[in-house]
Amino acid sequence: MTFLSGIAASNGIAIAKAYRLVEPDLSFEQTKIDDAAEEVERFRQAMNKSKAELEVIRDRAKIDLGEDKAAIFEAHLLVLSDPELNTPIEDKITSEHVNAESALKETADMFVMMFEQMDNEYMKERAADIRDVTKRVLSHLLGVQVVNPSMIAEEVIIVAEDLTPSDTAQLNRQFVKGFTTNIGGRTSHSAIMARSLEIPAVVGTKTATEAINNGDLVIVDGLKGEVHINPTSELVEQYRNIHEEYEAQKAEWAKLVNEPTVSADNHHVELVANIGTPNDLKGVTANGGEGVGLYRTEFLYMGRDQLPTEEEQFEAYKAVLEGMAGKPVVVRTLDIGGDKELPYLELPKEMNPFLGFRAIRLCLEEQGIFRTQLRALLRASSYGNLKIMFPMIATLDEFRAAKAILEEEKQKLLTEGQKVADKIELGIMVEIPSTAVLADQFAKEVDFFSIGTNDLIQYTMAADRMNQRVSYLYQPYSPSILRLVKMVIDASHAEGKWTGMCGEMAGDETAIPILLGLGLDEFSMSATSILKARSLIRNLKKSDMEKLAQEVLNMQTTSQVIEAVNLATTK
Amino acid sequence: MTFLSGIAASNGIAIAKAYRLVEPDLSFEQTKIDDAAEEVERFRQAMNKSKAELEVIRDRAKIDLGEDKAAIFEAHLLVLSDPELNTPIEDKITSEHVNAESALKETADMFVMMFEQMDNEYMKERAADIRDVTKRVLSHLLGVQVVNPSMIAEEVIIVAEDLTPSDTAQLNRQFVKGFTTNIGGRTSHSAIMARSLEIPAVVGTKTATEAINNGDLVIVDGLKGEVHINPTSELVEQYRNIHEEYEAQKAEWAKLVNEPTVSADNHHVELVANIGTPNDLKGVTANGGEGVGLYRTEFLYMGRDQLPTEEEQFEAYKAVLEGMAGKPVVVRTLDIGGDKELPYLELPKEMNPFLGFRAIRLCLEEQGIFRTQLRALLRASSYGNLKIMFPMIATLDEFRAAKAILEEEKQKLLTEGQKVADKIELGIMVEIPSTAVLADQFAKEVDFFSIGTNDLIQYTMAADRMNQRVSYLYQPYSPSILRLVKMVIDASHAEGKWTGMCGEMAGDETAIPILLGLGLDEFSMSATSILKARSLIRNLKKSDMEKLAQEVLNMQTTSQVIEAVNLATTK
Repeated sequence: MTFLSGIAASNGIAIAKAYRLVEPDLSFEQTKIDDAAEEVERFRQAMNKSKAELEVIRDRAKIDLGEDKAAIFEAHLLVLSDPELNTPIEDKITSEHVNAESALKETADMFVMMFEQMDNEYMKERAADIRDVTKRVLSHLLGVQVVNPSMIAEEVIIVAEDLTPSDTAQLNRQFVKGFTTNIGGRTSHSAIMARSLEIPAVVGTKTATEAINNGDLVIVDGLKGEVHINPTSELVEQYRNIHEEYEAQKAEWAKLVNEPTVSADNHHVELVANIGTPNDLKGVTANGGEGVGLYRTEFLYMGRDQLPTEEEQFEAYKAVLEGMAGKPVVVRTLDIGGDKELPYLELPKEMNPFLGFRAIRLCLEEQGIFRTQLRALLRASSYGNLKIMFPMIATLDEFRAAKAILEEEKQKLLTEGQKVADKIELGIMVEIPSTAVLADQFAKEVDFFSIGTNDLIQYTMAADRMNQRVSYLYQPYSPSILRLVKMVIDASHAEGKWTGMCGEMAGDETAIPILLGLGLDEFSMSATSILKARSLIRNLKKSDMEKLAQEVLNMQTTSQVIEAVNLATTK
Repeated sequence: MTFLSGIAASNGIAIAKAYRLVEPDLSFEQTKIDDAAEEVERFRQAMNKSKAELEVIRDRAKIDLGEDKAAIFEAHLLVLSDPELNTPIEDKITSEHVNAESALKETADMFVMMFEQMDNEYMKERAADIRDVTKRVLSHLLGVQVVNPSMIAEEVIIVAEDLTPSDTAQLNRQFVKGFTTNIGGRTSHSAIMARSLEIPAVVGTKTATEAINNGDLVIVDGLKGEVHINPTSELVEQYRNIHEEYEAQKAEWAKLVNEPTVSADNHHVELVANIGTPNDLKGVTANGGEGVGLYRTEFLYMGRDQLPTEEEQFEAYKAVLEGMAGKPVVVRTLDIGGDKELPYLELPKEMNPFLGFRAIRLCLEEQGIFRTQLRALLRASSYGNLKIMFPMIATLDEFRAAKAILEEEKQKLLTEGQKVADKIELGIMVEIPSTAVLADQFAKEVDFFSIGTNDLIQYTMAADRMNQRVSYLYQPYSPSILRLVKMVIDASHAEGKWTGMCGEMAGDETAIPILLGLGLDEFSMSATSILKARSLIRNLKKSDMEKLAQEVLNMQTTSQVIEAVNLATTK
């Protein structure tokens, strides 16, 4: 039995067998072989195994994911039977007496390079197909197992170095009971994704992929941030009890699903959800969300090889607006760059991507991308209660430029006779210190603010939130962060506007009492945190929390603040 | 005649021949050779040429730089005559029939790897020697010229991709009249260095190394940020006139060298200098600096292969303190990391180094490095008016931890019977937004603040100051930056403390009127900017500038602020 400690990224307990989602080691050495005919035979067998495997995957994909998604595997099968690829490989083995691995790799690399250099999307996709197929055949030659997350068909706990958004998109939620990763923190994408999928997760264990083998029994304790490997049956029993208790508490919270979010002295705030795709709406409704406070539109752009069309976007936005049936939906325009890359945009590598060309900075320059999204949003606006916000606004000039583009597209649509909602609230993310400091000036021109604490904290502390060596500086309760939050809320109220918060802090038990006291109007969080937050707020008096807030703003350190909150909320 | 446009990084005009400081292309292909004896002969000739060249360099270095610095070339000569290296190379040529280039490279690489793996500083230095010598011999084999910046013996303009601090350390100021680089901005190290050396410079030309050949006549216009390649004789004449006018204006300013820095209504401020090494002191005195506002100690650690000893540091600090003869000297403790790397520390690569493990964050963890520096500073303190400041402080906890370490070392020194000044002012750099926002709390515990605007601006705007794609966000006059500056100054004055500024902004003509109005106590800048700033301040009334400052704090955009300053200073 082994134990790992990490960061509790998503609540709950999961007990299941480990499934390692790790890139296989496909390295090999080029060797000379004696019997070329035998080597050709070995190559053909690997090809046949790959074919058989792909046929199973394709048939399964047709059923689970639809013809559409299964087409990729059909394309892979075509590559496998293409004599233009196979013949030169076999020739190479025969004439140069090299092992099948290197004959395959060298030949495939040549084709990949050739196709990639063509200025033709179709041929570039073929290059990707050849690369995938080569990996699969190599794995059979080397006797290494290639992972197929879409093939998982039993309850598992995913073990990985890190999970990218496209990894998680492939996971079948029915079978994935939990996950644990080597890297990441509470605000990494894998953590946010886990909460959105309501899957217990422990991230930042540093060594999960080393310590856990495929098939090991694993307990993921997403409440405490612990991972137990091959636990004793006593411990499993204990954890089954914890799991039940937690489920019982959730059942208690669930009774609040249709209750309003009011403090003990009757002050109402809005509890809304952060979502990534229309599929997340079920969770929002199930957890009593009063709307969507942050719709991250990036997922529409990720895990694909070209930009989404206006029509695709329109359908997604319409689905979310209709799904929320008139409840507010705040959509954030494209926030790409930083740690979120889109390979097909071919953006230059940056020295400090978090301080780089991303989000609104990119949209104001690559206006085609931006205008397509705005048109889709405007067209969807008549299907519900849409609010639009721009990410990474640092200056009023940027906000004005973005707003002008939106107005232009709106006028074009109206001229084209399209329907656009009369009133669409237009706000900004406050996630850059300069914008918080100048919030009074911004408040004259925007309809609302949404404080993005994940970025605001990392910029205000000058500490990369993904970098473990400076993670001690990620301090949501620092008096300096709280002062900036207060500046923003006060500035909005002075102009009759409202302020929301859509960073992790909005759902945090220690932060909520202070935020209530500071007068935050809207708390946007993972849907799964809503009921717990509602329960907490219903037990707090706003008047008491105002006093607490006043007090902590003049404190010197984070630890003093935490102490004060504990004292104020337990008395 | 060709023209390049870039960023004016250091004032003045330079006209001279181009000297390209570009890494030579030493790539080659491994080939089979027919006549091994001939190839061995070719190798021996390259060795002999390298030997002859090194002897010249060594003799020259002895005269120009002293025996000490010449020792490195002696070591290189020893490598060249070492049969342990030469014999295996010649054997390889003879037995494997490979070309001399690959025999040399493969053999040398093996020795380098072997020496580097030894846990012995001496052997590691030998690895570096072999690497340097291999480069030189390779260059002769390939007929490529290797650059030797220390060999420059005529007036030149340096043309480079970028200049690292160690590159500039090797330049002979007597002969280097100016420089131009492809990358960098006003706050890049090459730019700061140029101002400190009083060499005209234009950085960020993007294509200087492509457009300029060795020996081209080049005009560097550091006033406008322009580079002219092979200009017409008319243009050269024109520029000689501009150069003379500029020199005349400088002569005018020079009359202020012993005048106090007082505004037109008799408010005194301090104009002090940023320095990098004791050598910079001459410039401080020549330009009427009233002290040193920022001594960047990084240069002591750079361009070498191990940490400087306590003794080396003590000597440098003592030299600066004695050189300033009782005038204040503010020393910043080690600010390494970010864009400043120390190869011998082997720090892990970071995704966002500007938001990473650097400066005080590193010093609090690598306490050995920090304590050695503090001991050297404390021991030097009795030789002048020393003030110490810590860089990159984000929380009061960090300041307290650093201060506690300083106190410990002070007690140890006193116990050892060493002399330490009674009172050493202890301050912090304010370059992280959180610290500016919480300045009132910091002011209770620190003796002074020094606002580091280069970093403060990049963090407050969340825009990498080295990244040209977001350079539009580097806005020193943004009302949000000015508000943070005001918070810091007001906080210090409320506690009877003082605030300085040591970023580029402190010497900027547009910023100075506002900073005077905000009540900044100390302006620290490149020595060469001091007289110009003094001349400006003597023409401004503080009372008028207070009104200006009040006005710009409530503006919305940078362009409004610039307009207001222009209006207020030209009336």
